[in-house]
Amino acid sequence: TQHKPTNTIVTQHNTISPAAERLRYILSEDDDLPTPTLFTEMDTLQREGDELEWKESARWVKFEEKVEEGGERWSKPHVSTLSLHSLFELRTCLQTGTVLLDLDGYSLPQIVDDIIERQIEEGMLSPDLRGKITFVLLRKHRHQTKKPIHRSLADIGKSSSSTSECPYQELLRLMSPVFLQLKNKFMKKIPRNAEASNVLVGEVDFLNKPFVAFVRLAQATTLGGLTEVPVPTRFLFILLGPQGKAKSYNEIGRAIATLMVDDLFSDVAYKARDREDLIAGIDEFLDEVIVLPPGEWDPKIRIEPPKKVPSADKRKSVFSLNELGQVNGAAGGGGGLAEDEEMPVHFCGGLYLDIKRKLPWLPSDFYEGFHIQSISAVLFIYLGCITNAITFGGLLGDATDNYQGVMESFLGTALAGSVFCLFSGQPLIILSSTGPILIFEKLLFEFSKNNNIDYMELRLWIGIHSCLQCFILVATDASYIIKYMTRFTEEGFSSLISFIFISDAIKKMVGSFKYYPINTDFKPDYVTTYKCECLAPDPTSSSGVGGSKPQSSLGLTGSLNVTALDWSQLSKKECLKYGGSLVGKSCKYVPDLALMSFILFFGTYTMTVSLKKFKFSRYFPTKVIRKLISDFSIFMSIMTFVGLDMLMGLKTPKLIVPTEFKPTRPDRGWLVMPFGKNPWWIYLASFVPALLVTILIFMDQQISAVIVNRKENKLKKGCGYHLDLFWVGVLMAACSFIGLPWYVAATVISIAHIDSLKMESESSAPGEQPQFLGVREQRVTGILVFVLTGVSIFLAPILKFIPMPVLYGVFLYMGVASLSGIQFWDRIKLYMMPSKHQPDFSFLRHVPLRRVHLFTLVQIICLAVLWILKSTFLAIIFPVMILGLMVVRKMLDMVFSQHDLAWLDDLLPEKEKKKKDDDKKKGKDKKKSRPDNKEEEVRQLKLCCPLQEGQNITSGSVLCPQTAHPIQGPGLS
Amino acid sequence: TQHKPTNTIVTQHNTISPAAERLRYILSEDDDLPTPTLFTEMDTLQREGDELEWKESARWVKFEEKVEEGGERWSKPHVSTLSLHSLFELRTCLQTGTVLLDLDGYSLPQIVDDIIERQIEEGMLSPDLRGKITFVLLRKHRHQTKKPIHRSLADIGKSSSSTSECPYQELLRLMSPVFLQLKNKFMKKIPRNAEASNVLVGEVDFLNKPFVAFVRLAQATTLGGLTEVPVPTRFLFILLGPQGKAKSYNEIGRAIATLMVDDLFSDVAYKARDREDLIAGIDEFLDEVIVLPPGEWDPKIRIEPPKKVPSADKRKSVFSLNELGQVNGAAGGGGGLAEDEEMPVHFCGGLYLDIKRKLPWLPSDFYEGFHIQSISAVLFIYLGCITNAITFGGLLGDATDNYQGVMESFLGTALAGSVFCLFSGQPLIILSSTGPILIFEKLLFEFSKNNNIDYMELRLWIGIHSCLQCFILVATDASYIIKYMTRFTEEGFSSLISFIFISDAIKKMVGSFKYYPINTDFKPDYVTTYKCECLAPDPTSSSGVGGSKPQSSLGLTGSLNVTALDWSQLSKKECLKYGGSLVGKSCKYVPDLALMSFILFFGTYTMTVSLKKFKFSRYFPTKVIRKLISDFSIFMSIMTFVGLDMLMGLKTPKLIVPTEFKPTRPDRGWLVMPFGKNPWWIYLASFVPALLVTILIFMDQQISAVIVNRKENKLKKGCGYHLDLFWVGVLMAACSFIGLPWYVAATVISIAHIDSLKMESESSAPGEQPQFLGVREQRVTGILVFVLTGVSIFLAPILKFIPMPVLYGVFLYMGVASLSGIQFWDRIKLYMMPSKHQPDFSFLRHVPLRRVHLFTLVQIICLAVLWILKSTFLAIIFPVMILGLMVVRKMLDMVFSQHDLAWLDDLLPEKEKKKKDDDKKKGKDKKKSRPDNKEEEVRQLKLCCPLQEGQNITSGSVLCPQTAHPIQGPGLS
Repeated sequence: TQHKPTNTIVTQHNTISPAAERLRYILSEDDDLPTPTLFTEMDTLQREGDELEWKESARWVKFEEKVEEGGERWSKPHVSTLSLHSLFELRTCLQTGTVLLDLDGYSLPQIVDDIIERQIEEGMLSPDLRGKITFVLLRKHRHQTKKPIHRSLADIGKSSSSTSECPYQELLRLMSPVFLQLKNKFMKKIPRNAEASNVLVGEVDFLNKPFVAFVRLAQATTLGGLTEVPVPTRFLFILLGPQGKAKSYNEIGRAIATLMVDDLFSDVAYKARDREDLIAGIDEFLDEVIVLPPGEWDPKIRIEPPKKVPSADKRKSVFSLNELGQVNGAAGGGGGLAEDEEMPVHFCGGLYLDIKRKLPWLPSDFYEGFHIQSISAVLFIYLGCITNAITFGGLLGDATDNYQGVMESFLGTALAGSVFCLFSGQPLIILSSTGPILIFEKLLFEFSKNNNIDYMELRLWIGIHSCLQCFILVATDASYIIKYMTRFTEEGFSSLISFIFISDAIKKMVGSFKYYPINTDFKPDYVTTYKCECLAPDPTSSSGVGGSKPQSSLGLTGSLNVTALDWSQLSKKECLKYGGSLVGKSCKYVPDLALMSFILFFGTYTMTVSLKKFKFSRYFPTKVIRKLISDFSIFMSIMTFVGLDMLMGLKTPKLIVPTEFKPTRPDRGWLVMPFGKNPWWIYLASFVPALLVTILIFMDQQISAVIVNRKENKLKKGCGYHLDLFWVGVLMAACSFIGLPWYVAATVISIAHIDSLKMESESSAPGEQPQFLGVREQRVTGILVFVLTGVSIFLAPILKFIPMPVLYGVFLYMGVASLSGIQFWDRIKLYMMPSKHQPDFSFLRHVPLRRVHLFTLVQIICLAVLWILKSTFLAIIFPVMILGLMVVRKMLDMVFSQHDLAWLDDLLPEKEKKKKDDDKKKGKDKKKSRPDNKEEEVRQLKLCCPLQEGQNITSGSVLCPQTAHPIQGPGLS
Repeated sequence: TQHKPTNTIVTQHNTISPAAERLRYILSEDDDLPTPTLFTEMDTLQREGDELEWKESARWVKFEEKVEEGGERWSKPHVSTLSLHSLFELRTCLQTGTVLLDLDGYSLPQIVDDIIERQIEEGMLSPDLRGKITFVLLRKHRHQTKKPIHRSLADIGKSSSSTSECPYQELLRLMSPVFLQLKNKFMKKIPRNAEASNVLVGEVDFLNKPFVAFVRLAQATTLGGLTEVPVPTRFLFILLGPQGKAKSYNEIGRAIATLMVDDLFSDVAYKARDREDLIAGIDEFLDEVIVLPPGEWDPKIRIEPPKKVPSADKRKSVFSLNELGQVNGAAGGGGGLAEDEEMPVHFCGGLYLDIKRKLPWLPSDFYEGFHIQSISAVLFIYLGCITNAITFGGLLGDATDNYQGVMESFLGTALAGSVFCLFSGQPLIILSSTGPILIFEKLLFEFSKNNNIDYMELRLWIGIHSCLQCFILVATDASYIIKYMTRFTEEGFSSLISFIFISDAIKKMVGSFKYYPINTDFKPDYVTTYKCECLAPDPTSSSGVGGSKPQSSLGLTGSLNVTALDWSQLSKKECLKYGGSLVGKSCKYVPDLALMSFILFFGTYTMTVSLKKFKFSRYFPTKVIRKLISDFSIFMSIMTFVGLDMLMGLKTPKLIVPTEFKPTRPDRGWLVMPFGKNPWWIYLASFVPALLVTILIFMDQQISAVIVNRKENKLKKGCGYHLDLFWVGVLMAACSFIGLPWYVAATVISIAHIDSLKMESESSAPGEQPQFLGVREQRVTGILVFVLTGVSIFLAPILKFIPMPVLYGVFLYMGVASLSGIQFWDRIKLYMMPSKHQPDFSFLRHVPLRRVHLFTLVQIICLAVLWILKSTFLAIIFPVMILGLMVVRKMLDMVFSQHDLAWLDDLLPEKEKKKKDDDKKKGKDKKKSRPDNKEEEVRQLKLCCPLQEGQNITSGSVLCPQTAHPIQGPGLS
């Protein structure tokens, strides 16, 4: 009774097979409406007690979910593994069975009737079986619901079967809110316009050959309790067969169900004109299937859904009529690139374009900020910022004799940060004091002091000059230099900054062991010998009578002075203040604080790292909670260890913020006057040191911006290098007038800011992997951070509970976290791995390992040299060293082939251009030799229009109005 | 020129297809010799400069390894994903191409000649192409070697091609040691008797239809540099075709290569009589392939080799002539089970069988102990044992007024442990003092003291009685009770013991915060106010003159006594000893030690856990080193933190071992005399307390033994419950005579012992996963541990550097580690997971989640009740509570179905029997409803003959002489 399928797969490659020909015809017919998504449910006929019923055994939204028989639960979504056999058998079924396309069906009994009628007409079924088949097909359906004890409400509504012929009653039940609610959870996973396809398979004792029907309804109709969810049915596949082959029927059912959710086949099923079209669809499916050898894979293994599946459009595009031209055209990419090669010639062109690009986003920059994730980002970055403000404030206070102290640091951070976040081109960048500026201020203050020049006035003039120089750089579009900042430069710089963060955090931790020395010789039993006594400074004048003067002594020998200062009651500070000396074994030691600090420091770091991993854990009911825990990991760690510290009650060093709004140094006001204190020529001469500051700020700012605008971050709103620099210049001048420190982009905190705002897609079909969508680009978090920093002065009563070691732990985490995800770091790890254990990085597939290692080695050497320079007085020109990195990168062109560099780095603009010209000459033949993956496509659009992966090319121009921007990344097309 | 393959896959299920018929005929022909393993290499024709050459592009041992073109390296081994298309094209190729079977070939040129000759004969090739094809096929071969710069030595040997016709020269080169050495690394992965199959594909410009040849040589022959490794070639597949389809040829090449390494097809290829046999082989392969739908999987993803693939034997067995009977027969399992149901009737039957079973293993118990892994195991367990010995020694000393102290504890541990490891049935068990015994001793000592009975003599008599009672239990085979100790009981008990370990470790840690209180009010500035002075006891007698008596005072008021004891110089202890009082703020505090202890404790634990994970890391060159790091993780952590402690130099509490060999209490000797000190009736009456001790020891010992003998541990040498109990009894008596503590199996340390001795298979083919093979069952490690414990008295100078907190960290690790891998624990975790994230445990597929949860809940309640009881005076009957667990388990039979219990637990013997009988009646139909996986098979053999998975059933009886043993586990068959 079963038929041998004849295989129609052809071996000719370039000529098109008849199946494909058919498909091309029907698929390209009228592409105006996309076909609805199909939800497929498979029910099998089972005997429950004495009654037959249809029991749901599997379902497909995109991947298969099986009902675990014994476990009464849904399996995890997995890739359907089919046998070739079942596919061929299905093909035979469709060849020989009844195929009813566009049947007018309104209820299951009527549809069943129509099928049986047709079978009898065609002589495939003897009429006396009509009753039996109808009876079987109308048995009630039992669905696998969340709570297996309660039957689905839909079933309870019916008495015994779905023969209920009153569609009104059905409708009523469907609209019952309880019903909908019960289904709600799974319904969310099914797209709104979805339609259902039902697969019914089973064995019966009265048939001696299979009864097969494939039905497509003219209109999707809700057929009572047929489907688990209230989704109207469009397709129906029925397979009833003689007994003894239940497993085989099951496999055929799984095969058609898998086909129905296949993007291509479901299109075919919707548009098929006849049986042959369906069979052509199967053949095409077969031609595309992936085959695993039986000896290398166990079919029982459930394959987890992959991170990404080939897009349906790509598969379908083969069947478009104009396929040949289009495929190459699409790869060629956007046409707007050619004009971007040149720089704009007009004055302030870059600035104009930056504003033009950013302005339309302004409203969304605000309303997109209102999200729960923003809260955690604000808290995290806020803590980073105030720690930074305090650290640099303290250091600046030391360096400038408190002309700029912690108060100025807080105020400056708040002012500069919020203005920048409000108006800049890239509001994700966080401004902060940085090391080079600190060193510059230190040298400047010493110079002024030694030469009797007024420091604040000199500083103001430098700020003014520097601001003007920045404007010149903006006006001349000097920021185009970022074209030469390739991944090599970015990674070198950001790794170095991360190392500085890490080493600073550790240094401060080690410092607390020096600040709170541990008495390692302490013997608990000899506790009686440990004391620290304050002795009077002059033990010889033991007989003198000193009233309130602290010269009197108090010892065992002469205890005659009653009115004398009671030395033994003085604290350590007082004792030293009055000239006394501390004597005793315990004087120079502080118990517990160093170790407690270490526990707080290390605990905060470790807990944050552990909680961050929580996103991938299986615990906790929803992804939302896991995401929350991961987002708030830093906050929770800080809270935990602040709590521990309070519980212990030890006097660990705490965060101290200024509480009064006044300059740190009493003899300076809030405004710095430009004239009066220094000779006139100083106003002009300050142009020279300003030049150094400008270069310093320019490099520091732009490299950080390049790192933030990295293509990996998938930013959609574009960058604004010119606008950023403009505001940095303005703020320089403003801060100089109020006597606040200067600010520039802080790499590590900016990266942390971006990391805390990353978005992932909600997965739609069960089993589909969430994708990284991009970053919540908005101005709200930044502004809030800096407003909070400003009002921190009033938050002192709360902030004073935070121990400093906890904040150093946060610093350590920031440094380590900003290292991860850097390709350079991945490549360093390769040194330590045997090649067979190395991960499957795409560059490893295309560049020989020794070249990769050589490239990494160059980077390491550069980094080491920078590190050494940073530790000397050369630290002041540190950002200028980025230029050095760029020179090294340029020289690498001589050592590495452009092919290797394209994989390990980006190409330099002129090389890119040359390569493109070469490619044009050589034509399409050499395309293979180039990196041809998505990454490359994206890189073309890198600098200012990072196109979201998978985003439609046409809609790209809507989302990204700056496609006409001149600093377009170097493209290959 | 290409042909449409006609598909021969049939849809009839129970009838056999013609392809299978063919295969059955050839495969069952003469099964005397297994076919060699095939190594397949695929070379593609490529133009290198102006020259053509064959370049290796992929190889297969079992899985595919591809040459990364750009990366010049081997990809990771992965499952070959083929397209159906290429398989059908291959089929066409074999149908139309030249097939030469059993060709006499001695060199490549001759073979090529033969192929061309045949093609010309058959009119498939025009004779004028002979020269061109010969030229192409004899181009030199370039292999992907480790160092891509050096060409393979084999190629250098030849001038330009492999046309060298001197086999002697070839042989000479092959035998060059340098050559072999260079290849050595990969050769190790290829089985010794392997033969090669070479696949050569390429496109040439002079052909207009494909040139296809499949050659099987009569004898495997080394054909020059054809193959990467010196493995003789047996098969040759050549595909040359017209230009423009290189990709397609490549895919066909991959298809035949994958087929050649398929267990079934390679058999077919070796035994094929003609072309049709090969095609039948392909058809059979196609019938078994696993198909992935194109929309759900990306063919570019390289699939990692699975943990396990279906065994080739199973696949081949279908083609055995007597297949029908055999399949069911095999599932029926071993025939030796039926007679094991009854207990042996003769006296000491169990003991006799134990000895009979263990004796043959005795030599291997020693020589198998010599392995690097044993060193780490010994160190780990040694540290656990001495920590235990010190802890219990200290507690026993307290409880018995030093009649049994640390010295006795060390000596007893060493004596009992080494005797037990030398002679017992299960030498993996580690003896130790346990809690219940400690409580018993405590009560006994108090009782003796209050009633003026000599403790040691009474104890001796109890020991003697208990020993005799143990002998009775041994003689009556009472150990058969272990049949009723199912997983439920095991898990409950071992979790409880683990919790006790964990809570003890934490308690001791917390204790150190009490022992070394931290002064949380310490203000560094007021260091001057912290002191602790020793004041004389009687401040009123300030004027009295006391010679050497410590009544004199020393204060600020009267300092007249010069000869008085200098109170301020006294240590804390001395001060209190002489009746002084300590006054001052710092008296009751000890700085740093508590926090340092915490750092040592937590650090040791965390570092051990991290290092254990190292086994799965990608770093370090070889698996061996990773394994070493993982094995020695505890040792390395201990060393690290001992080092840290020494570096800090703080007086943390250290391990103190006795240094002199004498009883702790000076008034007792090493021997306890049985008579003389107590009245005669005591000798008889001690029978009653002895009964309690016996039950206690019996339960404690046997449950630990059941846990050690768990089927998951895959022990091969069988158990010896009776023998174990016998020796425990003997040691009871012996220890009582020498006045040492009593010893019984320690669950947690025994589990740690097993864990540290686990073996994994070396993977053979690249990509194959290593399998857990079992445990290094031997007596060496145990004996060494206890010998070391014995000589620890002389190791005191070294051991004194180990801080106790480090050892508590080890304790914590032991407790946590022994929890992992317990199913109970996995089930508890399920409570916290949403069901869709739960791991795919097999019991979840078969038992509804609510039943699983209920079962877990019962276990949790039992555990809670036990925990509470343990904390009361009932702790003494604690091991007897195992009986309670067994009763609860028995009652579960009323709540849970046997089906559920079979998945969550084991069946009780009588139920097992009943089920078996039922199954017999019902026949094969109901087989589906039972757990039918491997686990079940193994469970049948659980208690005394844990059969290694994958081990041949027939050889099982050789490896496991105790198959005839009566305590055979309950079987279903």
